[in-house]
Amino acid sequence: MSKAASPIYRRLALVGCGMIGSSVARSARARGAVGEIAVFDASETVRARVAELGIADQVCHSAAAAVEGADLVLFAAPPLSIAPAAQAVAAALAPGATVTDVGSVKTAVSEGLSLLGREDVFIVPGHPIAGAETSGPDAGREGLFENRWTILTPREEGAGRDYLEAVERLADFWRALGANVDFMDPRHHDLVLAVTSHLPHLIAYNIVGTAADLEAVTRSEVIKYSAGGFRDFTRIAASDPIMWRDVFLANKDAVLEILGRFTEDLQALSRAIRWGEGDKLQDLFTRTREIRRGVIDAGQETPEPDFGRHHDRG
Amino acid sequence: MSKAASPIYRRLALVGCGMIGSSVARSARARGAVGEIAVFDASETVRARVAELGIADQVCHSAAAAVEGADLVLFAAPPLSIAPAAQAVAAALAPGATVTDVGSVKTAVSEGLSLLGREDVFIVPGHPIAGAETSGPDAGREGLFENRWTILTPREEGAGRDYLEAVERLADFWRALGANVDFMDPRHHDLVLAVTSHLPHLIAYNIVGTAADLEAVTRSEVIKYSAGGFRDFTRIAASDPIMWRDVFLANKDAVLEILGRFTEDLQALSRAIRWGEGDKLQDLFTRTREIRRGVIDAGQETPEPDFGRHHDRG
Repeated sequence: MSKAASPIYRRLALVGCGMIGSSVARSARARGAVGEIAVFDASETVRARVAELGIADQVCHSAAAAVEGADLVLFAAPPLSIAPAAQAVAAALAPGATVTDVGSVKTAVSEGLSLLGREDVFIVPGHPIAGAETSGPDAGREGLFENRWTILTPREEGAGRDYLEAVERLADFWRALGANVDFMDPRHHDLVLAVTSHLPHLIAYNIVGTAADLEAVTRSEVIKYSAGGFRDFTRIAASDPIMWRDVFLANKDAVLEILGRFTEDLQALSRAIRWGEGDKLQDLFTRTREIRRGVIDAGQETPEPDFGRHHDRG
Repeated sequence: MSKAASPIYRRLALVGCGMIGSSVARSARARGAVGEIAVFDASETVRARVAELGIADQVCHSAAAAVEGADLVLFAAPPLSIAPAAQAVAAALAPGATVTDVGSVKTAVSEGLSLLGREDVFIVPGHPIAGAETSGPDAGREGLFENRWTILTPREEGAGRDYLEAVERLADFWRALGANVDFMDPRHHDLVLAVTSHLPHLIAYNIVGTAADLEAVTRSEVIKYSAGGFRDFTRIAASDPIMWRDVFLANKDAVLEILGRFTEDLQALSRAIRWGEGDKLQDLFTRTREIRRGVIDAGQETPEPDFGRHHDRG
């Protein structure tokens, strides 16, 4: 971790300060990426907690007060709340401000933000691929974005030099927080994330729900014997319910497309089991090992067996 | 960890010494649960490595030599290899020996072992619910079974006092290794494990396979952006291919039954997404959070966010 030579933005306004927002605040401050941080959150409880944690210079009682004079306005709220929250403060945005977000869905968010009606601000949607199953300002941590990827989805048509400079400045901000930055078309982002994030969450939520509802196997048995693999899924299935509801509603088409492929493959696998086709099973199970090696080699996963968790002594 | 007052078995013969077998050897020795350990593995490479690691008193060149004089014979091999391996040494078993295994499927293994034709040995199938995605003798570790559950599936009909004593002695052996012990009917075991282990593996293998085969999203993108959830699944999908091929072939009926339920639930979830039924999604996503809390409260999972993995800096 190195401190930026000088702050990249004078004033960061964070609208929404849950796990991701609070990680942005902690990381931006620790790394000197911004001069000052103003926070607004729709929840009074969250605002009070952010004030107690001391991770912002200013905790505001309205979003308009937070964004006043900010050269970076970052919306860290569930996907479907972002555009309405931005609309509500459109008039209060400082001319020349960069407006961004951290939503897991980019097509819907980009469309919503494009209706702000302010030609004198730079709208650059974004998404840091980092997180945990925990929620709220206490769950954030400095360093969450270290060596993770942040994807920016800037507009491609009619982008002038000022806009391109604003994009590059936002990329520098994320790099100062330790992230690698990529640029992508919003639709492609949504398809990629449907694979690497949305479908995994859907599957995890589903299997945990199935296991909880069986009659022949009790919930207590499911819990006791979860170390056979099931417990891995419960982590993801403990993620924020509101945020994930929004993700599936806002990225419906891509999720259903990828889910269709998954279901097709699952039917083929099911058939191979039914007919005792051991070779097919072994082939797939060997191929999938390579992907894990790729993920570890790319620095996106710990190489330690079992995620390194030997802390689970009861 | 505490040492047993005196060894529970004089001589442990381990047939198969991969990750689980080697963890049994390391744990049994560290905790004084057995007097001596003899190992045979069908792979010459594994035998040589076990000798180098020094985790056994004797590395034998035949299974018959390993089981000679052993009062506990433990088969730690993929499910479909267990019964043939036991058949091959049936004549060499010491009278009064306890014969057990660690296979993830119990009905098929129990049926196979029941054909040994030796009325003077005690057959008590077993399954420790513990493991990791790594394979081979180097992957084993002392303490793997600590606070995990081992399920024994003793026969219920015609069990005399000697047999019940043999069952209790084997339970004491697993307790000495740190495990909790439960007893179960083999069919119920196979249904419970289909939920808590086999279906999770099937789903993980499938999603990793689906992601690897897409055209619209490259493999490199899948790997780069895997921290959004996908990487969790790659761990399980890196498990031993032969062992898991055997599990699905040997536990076909229970796996297909549970998979049917999973698929039914997934279709309902898919429909809720298609029709924008946010309340249904949020309800499920809230319910599943409770299961994670149950798993953590039962000491079967680390309470740390993200499995405690902050070691993944590239």
